[in-house]
Amino acid sequence: MMMRIDIISAVPDLLISPLNNSIIKRAQDKGYVHIFIHNLRDYAFNKHRQIDDKPFGGGPGMLLKPEPFFECIEKLKSERKYDNIIFPGPRGKIFDQKMANRFSLCENLLFVAGHYKGIDQRVFDSFATDEISLGNFVLSGGELPALVFVDAVVRLIPGVLNDSESALCDSFMDEHKIEAPYYTRPAEYKGLQVPEVLLSGNKKNIDDWKEEQSKIMTNKWKLNNSLGG
Amino acid sequence: MMMRIDIISAVPDLLISPLNNSIIKRAQDKGYVHIFIHNLRDYAFNKHRQIDDKPFGGGPGMLLKPEPFFECIEKLKSERKYDNIIFPGPRGKIFDQKMANRFSLCENLLFVAGHYKGIDQRVFDSFATDEISLGNFVLSGGELPALVFVDAVVRLIPGVLNDSESALCDSFMDEHKIEAPYYTRPAEYKGLQVPEVLLSGNKKNIDDWKEEQSKIMTNKWKLNNSLGG
Repeated sequence: MMMRIDIISAVPDLLISPLNNSIIKRAQDKGYVHIFIHNLRDYAFNKHRQIDDKPFGGGPGMLLKPEPFFECIEKLKSERKYDNIIFPGPRGKIFDQKMANRFSLCENLLFVAGHYKGIDQRVFDSFATDEISLGNFVLSGGELPALVFVDAVVRLIPGVLNDSESALCDSFMDEHKIEAPYYTRPAEYKGLQVPEVLLSGNKKNIDDWKEEQSKIMTNKWKLNNSLGG
Repeated sequence: MMMRIDIISAVPDLLISPLNNSIIKRAQDKGYVHIFIHNLRDYAFNKHRQIDDKPFGGGPGMLLKPEPFFECIEKLKSERKYDNIIFPGPRGKIFDQKMANRFSLCENLLFVAGHYKGIDQRVFDSFATDEISLGNFVLSGGELPALVFVDAVVRLIPGVLNDSESALCDSFMDEHKIEAPYYTRPAEYKGLQVPEVLLSGNKKNIDDWKEEQSKIMTNKWKLNNSLGG
């Protein structure tokens, strides 16, 4: 199965380099996912291609107008059925690995990125199936969150990662389980030693050490993030 | 005061377009922040410019070797004092607006992005002042989190946003306070009306409506994200 991802943005150029490097690039090259960027300005009505306007009721900043979104989203919806139409935004449920897993099973995903002060609410009310927040902080737009969602989802598509185990043993596949620290060559560097057990070749001892370190790390993480211990 | 941000990455090209568009670009053009990308591969020792190797103790995936990081970070540290050396990673405290506020007051920030399976632990132990997590999900590297942190921080530097109020009334400046929905022209579009109160010109009524909507939205958000409410 091939996944298709569409992203609508008022600053489409921002999206280019993360979609054309590393694993997202490879996933597209291999045909596991097709990603299409849509420039909101291409769907503007008037000759000035105006996409923003002042908010009703006053206040600072500019809002993205409804018409270009309606034009673009209705066109895309007429061409295929989207499993989810996702608006990155501060009001949404906070993104986590469970959502990434769920979205990785979808065929067609549409991300609608706001920018500046946001998007006219009627766009959201008419089309959004999901509003997803990246976390408790303010960003300039929905583009970086959309890229994060895409990266988290695409790497879960079977075949995308070279070594499928590499994804399976990642942190967070099990809830809040942090992995043991990693070391590679050289075994000693500037007086800093790799833990001896990792050089021992004794699989049982190595596994025990990794398990113990993982527990320590996970407890430390829980403490850091106040989820109890 | 001018902020300087350095980012070390094994896939530096990934960082280009988000740093050269929208508010981050404007902040650089105006001289509020200077951002430097460092290609990890430029600091590799041997002629093959090898930057990764297999993990000690076995397991799938490739790790980033310690030497290029030591070379690059020690060079940067010899040139200036960094307020924070930040490793994006799953073990860290989860990023929030308070951290963004704190970092926005810094003079020199260094972000060290891992990729693939991660970074040799000795790099982290030797240099990290902070490990920060973007959330409970797995990504291909620390580049997108670093870009998110940079965006959240740079927009808080005084002068970066055109209308300074635009940042002040954003969601999350007050803890978990979500703003009322926004509407712009046209007042009616495809039968969808802007709430009448916003067209009334009555400032008191508009402010009351925004306050009420904000409360409703904030409670809904809390419910969505299980923080009680």
